[in-house]
Amino acid sequence: MQPIRFEPAALLPAKTMDIQQYMQALGQRARNASRAMARADSAAKNRALLAIADAIARDASRLKEINQKDLARARANGNDAAFIDRLTLSDKALQTMIEGLRQIAALPDPIGEITNVRVRPTGIQVGQMRVPLGVIGIIYESRPNVTIDAAALCLKSGNATILRGGSEAIESNTALAALIAEGLASAGLPGEAVQVVATPDRAAVGELITMTAHVDVIVPRGGKSLIERLMRDARVPMIKHLDGICHVYVDGRADPVKANAICDNAKTHRYGTCNTMETLLVDVAAQALLPELARTMRSRQVELRACERSYAVLEAAGIDGIKHAVEEDWSTEYLAPVLAVKIVDGLDAAIDHINHYGSHHTDAIVSEDYSATMRFLREVDSASVMVNASTRFADGFEYGLGAEIGISNDKLHARGPVGLEGLTSLKYVVFGHGEVRQ
Amino acid sequence: MQPIRFEPAALLPAKTMDIQQYMQALGQRARNASRAMARADSAAKNRALLAIADAIARDASRLKEINQKDLARARANGNDAAFIDRLTLSDKALQTMIEGLRQIAALPDPIGEITNVRVRPTGIQVGQMRVPLGVIGIIYESRPNVTIDAAALCLKSGNATILRGGSEAIESNTALAALIAEGLASAGLPGEAVQVVATPDRAAVGELITMTAHVDVIVPRGGKSLIERLMRDARVPMIKHLDGICHVYVDGRADPVKANAICDNAKTHRYGTCNTMETLLVDVAAQALLPELARTMRSRQVELRACERSYAVLEAAGIDGIKHAVEEDWSTEYLAPVLAVKIVDGLDAAIDHINHYGSHHTDAIVSEDYSATMRFLREVDSASVMVNASTRFADGFEYGLGAEIGISNDKLHARGPVGLEGLTSLKYVVFGHGEVRQ
Repeated sequence: MQPIRFEPAALLPAKTMDIQQYMQALGQRARNASRAMARADSAAKNRALLAIADAIARDASRLKEINQKDLARARANGNDAAFIDRLTLSDKALQTMIEGLRQIAALPDPIGEITNVRVRPTGIQVGQMRVPLGVIGIIYESRPNVTIDAAALCLKSGNATILRGGSEAIESNTALAALIAEGLASAGLPGEAVQVVATPDRAAVGELITMTAHVDVIVPRGGKSLIERLMRDARVPMIKHLDGICHVYVDGRADPVKANAICDNAKTHRYGTCNTMETLLVDVAAQALLPELARTMRSRQVELRACERSYAVLEAAGIDGIKHAVEEDWSTEYLAPVLAVKIVDGLDAAIDHINHYGSHHTDAIVSEDYSATMRFLREVDSASVMVNASTRFADGFEYGLGAEIGISNDKLHARGPVGLEGLTSLKYVVFGHGEVRQ
Repeated sequence: MQPIRFEPAALLPAKTMDIQQYMQALGQRARNASRAMARADSAAKNRALLAIADAIARDASRLKEINQKDLARARANGNDAAFIDRLTLSDKALQTMIEGLRQIAALPDPIGEITNVRVRPTGIQVGQMRVPLGVIGIIYESRPNVTIDAAALCLKSGNATILRGGSEAIESNTALAALIAEGLASAGLPGEAVQVVATPDRAAVGELITMTAHVDVIVPRGGKSLIERLMRDARVPMIKHLDGICHVYVDGRADPVKANAICDNAKTHRYGTCNTMETLLVDVAAQALLPELARTMRSRQVELRACERSYAVLEAAGIDGIKHAVEEDWSTEYLAPVLAVKIVDGLDAAIDHINHYGSHHTDAIVSEDYSATMRFLREVDSASVMVNASTRFADGFEYGLGAEIGISNDKLHARGPVGLEGLTSLKYVVFGHGEVRQ
């Protein structure tokens, strides 16, 4: 491994070491800092969050200047407009960061809560205490706002963090890391509680996801290819979001007005989000509703890819611009104005289709039939299951979590939108009076 | 891969296929069965559990005969007495299985519970529903009782299971699997909800722990070497128990009578269990209690391995049979009548020692000091943290879980004793009235 140099004062002292040594040192420092964070009181954590917000406001001009270096390099490398947009620290982006920090400071502290305390026949009292996970590694793309969001959520939940953002944002991230360290120090918390990996070397990621002694969980935030690569190599457990192939099922007893409004919103409110509908399932008993649903989609230039039966219905209704769906369409996350459409033979077929082709993210039924909605809620194996609501509601803010670090497709630990509580776990606490086991 | 033959009627049809095909087929069948199990009602699951209990009672003689084949082979292979003991289906072992099944039938069903339903400003109501994990793989040693215990817990929690027991128990496990399938069928549940891997080929384990499409979680039950091997190769998430290096810290304000009773029980109640004390930490302010604690240990022939300071105290008190501890002692799980002893400089040093050398399993403080106990509870990073109680209480039954599938050293998902709830997760459910996102 090539020797690297570290510049930022907020990070490890500048010296030459190899990537493995560097990451292990970062990990050890994070582990130590995590002990202090676990016992930090809410007031100190909130002071740190507000101090970071103030420092960003104070240094806004400087941050934008530093960000220009990243932007210049990204433009020279030919990155596209969307990439440049995500990388840019505009006034609006900085203001959003500042507001995010203040919102997270205002959230209740999840740590230390003790629940379910019960007296056992032996006399001991057994309960559970909510505690931080410990050290959280965040791997993300070139979006400096994630540096602040992720650091803030981990800080509030009492965790230490190692942040590994896209190398194109390294100047911006390093500058933000220094402000975070300043905020932590001003609140009497260890600056090492939030560390940014200060090398663009990709080998750093390989270390981060395998150093199980120092890192308790990895939260990757990025596209499917990043996540799939991490899944192959990670040894540290992950809270991950893979993809969102979301369905709306219009049941035979759907209210037509609700069906139309929900499908419209679920598909066309935002095309690029993970909770956007990608496949519309229509009960054969509701196929009379299909032309109207299709007209709404076509009025918004959504391309429809229809199964045999729905194609025939739409053709007969004179809807234009319909394509034939192929097998692959049922498992494609378009993230675009394209919608797969299928007529199914009732609730069981809809549930089977969703459980087979979906990504266990978010699925909705539109129906006025009580038993159908209850079965859909129970039997669809997805992180979010909805009745008569748009899939677009699958979101930490909409669910009332206050903020989210991501949406989990996993079944273990946190499922669906992950807020502060997803960055914690429960340990058992036993209050005794000298009891021994018989 | 070599072709193998499958005999048991309860399993895949007898034919020749390679291990990978076989395990994939098992996985696909488990996945299908998991859908039916997820919607099974409590009454059906309980009927199945009771029918399995009745079938074991009815076939006790035959099971013991079949078990003799495994025992004969194990003896011929030179397995030791403890191994033979665990492999034996005695009348007592069968009775314990039957009682376990009936107890699990009597437990409340965790599945379907909906909690935390809140109305959001948009009008949607958001809650969480408890659901099964899906397909659980259990990997264990040659203990046929685990076949029944694990199957029963997975069944009650609505999961499908693939059981891979030690190859020395294969005849016994296959016979038990047939009775499980019979019980499932009698309750109208799919027999494939519990499948036993019917080949001793070790490659089966390699498939089981990597087929992420079909298996949601692996629960290994076995020694440290098994777990470490699985940790290297598994792609499926695990709920695992690694080791138990448990501490009792006798604080400067400990009640001497409680300290002596708790240390005695924590060390000597059972030597081979994971919640047994392996290191005794004594506050320097409580070192006057050390000779009495040591005398209790010596009266039970427990070997003491003492740090410099405690060695001096014990020598001065005329306690015999003391050895000098070496660095390795602080991180050794003896599982034997051996105890490491260390004098520490107060609470902070005790917490640091436990967090550094312990295995995050179970640790206890003996103290009458309110602030010390509160800090110990919060800052010791272990699955179970106790005040004035023996570490031996860290157990699913003692905690009131009704039963346990194991004790987790992990931080994600379930921590400490894992009961039915640990085999479930929470999905979000949204009750709407036609709402769309603005």
